[in-house]
Amino acid sequence: MSETITLAQQLIQIDSITPEDKGCQHMIADYLSALGFNTEHMRFADVDNIWSRKGLDSPCLVFAGHTDVVPTGPADAWTHPPFSAHIDGDIMYGRGTADMKSSIACFMVATKRFVKDHPDHKGSIAYLITSDEEGPAINGTVKVVEALERRNEKFEYCLVGEPSSSHKLADSIKNGRRGSLSGKLTVKGIQGHIAYPELADNPIHNLAPALEQLVQVQWDHGNEYFPPTSFQVSNINGGTGATNVIPGDVEVLFNFRFSTEHSPESLQESVHAILDHHKLEYDLQWNLSGLPFITPADGELIQAVQQASENVLGYKPQLSTGGGTSDGRFIAPTGAQVIELGPINATIHKIDEQVSVADLEKLTDIYYQTLVNLLT
Amino acid sequence: MSETITLAQQLIQIDSITPEDKGCQHMIADYLSALGFNTEHMRFADVDNIWSRKGLDSPCLVFAGHTDVVPTGPADAWTHPPFSAHIDGDIMYGRGTADMKSSIACFMVATKRFVKDHPDHKGSIAYLITSDEEGPAINGTVKVVEALERRNEKFEYCLVGEPSSSHKLADSIKNGRRGSLSGKLTVKGIQGHIAYPELADNPIHNLAPALEQLVQVQWDHGNEYFPPTSFQVSNINGGTGATNVIPGDVEVLFNFRFSTEHSPESLQESVHAILDHHKLEYDLQWNLSGLPFITPADGELIQAVQQASENVLGYKPQLSTGGGTSDGRFIAPTGAQVIELGPINATIHKIDEQVSVADLEKLTDIYYQTLVNLLT
Ligand SMILES: [Zn+2]
Ligand SMILES: [Zn+2]
Repeated sequence: MSETITLAQQLIQIDSITPEDKGCQHMIADYLSALGFNTEHMRFADVDNIWSRKGLDSPCLVFAGHTDVVPTGPADAWTHPPFSAHIDGDIMYGRGTADMKSSIACFMVATKRFVKDHPDHKGSIAYLITSDEEGPAINGTVKVVEALERRNEKFEYCLVGEPSSSHKLADSIKNGRRGSLSGKLTVKGIQGHIAYPELADNPIHNLAPALEQLVQVQWDHGNEYFPPTSFQVSNINGGTGATNVIPGDVEVLFNFRFSTEHSPESLQESVHAILDHHKLEYDLQWNLSGLPFITPADGELIQAVQQASENVLGYKPQLSTGGGTSDGRFIAPTGAQVIELGPINATIHKIDEQVSVADLEKLTDIYYQTLVNLLT
Repeated sequence: MSETITLAQQLIQIDSITPEDKGCQHMIADYLSALGFNTEHMRFADVDNIWSRKGLDSPCLVFAGHTDVVPTGPADAWTHPPFSAHIDGDIMYGRGTADMKSSIACFMVATKRFVKDHPDHKGSIAYLITSDEEGPAINGTVKVVEALERRNEKFEYCLVGEPSSSHKLADSIKNGRRGSLSGKLTVKGIQGHIAYPELADNPIHNLAPALEQLVQVQWDHGNEYFPPTSFQVSNINGGTGATNVIPGDVEVLFNFRFSTEHSPESLQESVHAILDHHKLEYDLQWNLSGLPFITPADGELIQAVQQASENVLGYKPQLSTGGGTSDGRFIAPTGAQVIELGPINATIHKIDEQVSVADLEKLTDIYYQTLVNLLT
């Protein structure tokens, strides 16, 4: 059994359901300490985080990730117990195998090998590990980044170990994420009996043409980095339950995943213009959960990772900005180049989450080669 | 205190919440028995009904109504206890004052006076009283009518005592009702994560253009008897509650109140055509709760009632087919002329339901004069 697999199993066997860390970070810190890293434990509210660094020189490559995992769902439904890290052939099962304790194990072994092979490497290496990525993401990465910025501590590159791969290992690197803007819309009418519609004002009827327009709009065409901005309704609810009553209001929850072709303000303006055009009486509450960010393809980090992947695997990862948000959104505003590269994400957050053991060895090699490319 | 008011109070003081009759019908039957009526008690399941008739000749005028009332809501909220039938000045308060025990009291006193004044009147008089109008309306009027049809017992005229008046007594007679057709539509999509809309199929988005069209359609322009057909959505529900999940389906409950310009089949065809045009995958369940009916303005019944009202009040009622359904829909298919005339309906089904004492005296006079016009 390789060291990567042993370390991954040790981390996965700790049931650190968000926001619990349950000692994972101490295990990581002890391991890094033996390699010459200095670790700060930064606990904010009920969230454990570590910032661990070896050296102070530029450039600094940060490995970023999280030790918390999502709940397992019904444990009976799993082929192997969710915290067993059981290996069957090439497959290791368990909550956190893909998202993302295995990546952390790969970081650790790659770092150990690199430090041993290149004791006089240039620059520095750091770890930013939180236990709050799967939860509200309030007392995790964002707070650590704030602490570093307050003391003017800089880093140039950040490699997040989130599972970015789709069908085969490293077929895709995330080099940015769309922004996420949510709205809670309440369209108001006047409740009444369905037999007397002239005495009521049906908010569902008032909403219908505006909703039709909102779902038809082509918000933008995306750009070289981003797919087109997407508008999706997640929930719509109106009605008293009674079949003979016109309701007094209807509520719509919606979300934009938006490209750098839009700002939150421009989207808000467009939505208000549509609602106002249809003369709706409404209340609309906005929530911005992340601005879009992009790490350009010609930067040193992407070049280093793509070359490393091609070396190890024989093919170059595609760049992508699709998918959900990640803690990269909190790191990118520092000005660092940020990318995400990790295992196949097909089973994350699901029953029988799993990862290929062979992939983890290759992922360790890619991380190692990235260190070589950037820091030697 | 007049006999009408005393009788009304006695009926209202019985808390006959639907489907309970609690002896109201026995009280009515005893009263009519003394006038020469023969009463059949027709109990179907848990519902009491009476069919009471004096004479067998044609034409026969039926007084129709119900002894059941809707629940009171919080009794504390009433100015006077809901079954007190308390009179304050000209106003009698209580559940059933307007809908519709007072009308039954008016029927009874008008009948007594008429039989006394015209012992040799032509034709016959009958009462069809149910305790199932406010409930499911399955074991009430519809079953009594079926029993009469089975034995080929005919009647020509039916005056339903439902509160038809809007602002002043007898400003409006209902001489028909719109049909009522309901639909439960489920539009299907594919559930998925909101960050990956290309892997999902948002049923709310698919529904939007079809809904927009459904609420914009002018179904018909009505006709001399009916207002235009009305389409109303009562409930719309889609979404898992989570804000990051595109739901797998969305449900819409809607209702048509339709004129004789449409049949249930023509409305169903139109709705299916719209849904199919938008290529929706859907399930749609229909429920027909009543066909439209109309009693033409030139029939003897309307002529008699309008003349009676003008005699008593100095003005002629307007004819109307607006508002909710009533048991008239079950009687009209027999071929009888059916109208509804009763007190002001502003407070029915509400806290502090009430009726004007003076109106009840006039309503008794109108019913009396109608008997004179038709049966002498
Ligand atoms: Zn993750
Ligand atoms: Zn009624």
